Amino acid sequence: MVKVTVHVTLRQGVLDPQGKAIKDSLNSLGYAEVEDARVGKSIELMVEEGPDLEARVEEMCKKLLANPVMEDYRIEVEGAVRS
Amino acid sequence: MVKVTVHVTLRQGVLDPQGKAIKDSLNSLGYAEVEDARVGKSIELMVEEGPDLEARVEEMCKKLLANPVMEDYRIEVEGAVRS
Repeated sequence: MVKVTVHVTLRQGVLDPQGKAIKDSLNSLGYAEVEDARVGKSIELMVEEGPDLEARVEEMCKKLLANPVMEDYRIEVEGAVRS
Repeated sequence: MVKVTVHVTLRQGVLDPQGKAIKDSLNSLGYAEVEDARVGKSIELMVEEGPDLEARVEEMCKKLLANPVMEDYRIEVEGAVRS
């Protein structure tokens, strides 16, 4: 079993109201040093090893996990995990 | 300016219906090798450098960014970024 993490982030230029709310809240809590906040998703998949693992995860991103119009994604294969 | 990423994940044992939906969808799309999926958040902060940067981000996590009852968090300071 391999642990694969897919990091999905909003593309630059896409408005991120949730990030804006976090930034404003942090500022009003006294953390004036926070200048920007953006929120993304990280999807941890436990995948049975097989050929073309990365290519298949890439396909999953395109088909389901990310919206390529608004989001970028990055795939991180974290190596074998004992199940 | 420093880029700090806070990774927030559900604690083990906490049900993750969104992850379950992703796993089921991937399986029904033909990706039978996916055995589990868990969804977390990654919050990218752009922070003005200062003393105690990491301690202050830790505080932000406890106060606002994560719910310590249900979530774990991990802080990753990615180094200086030109603004």
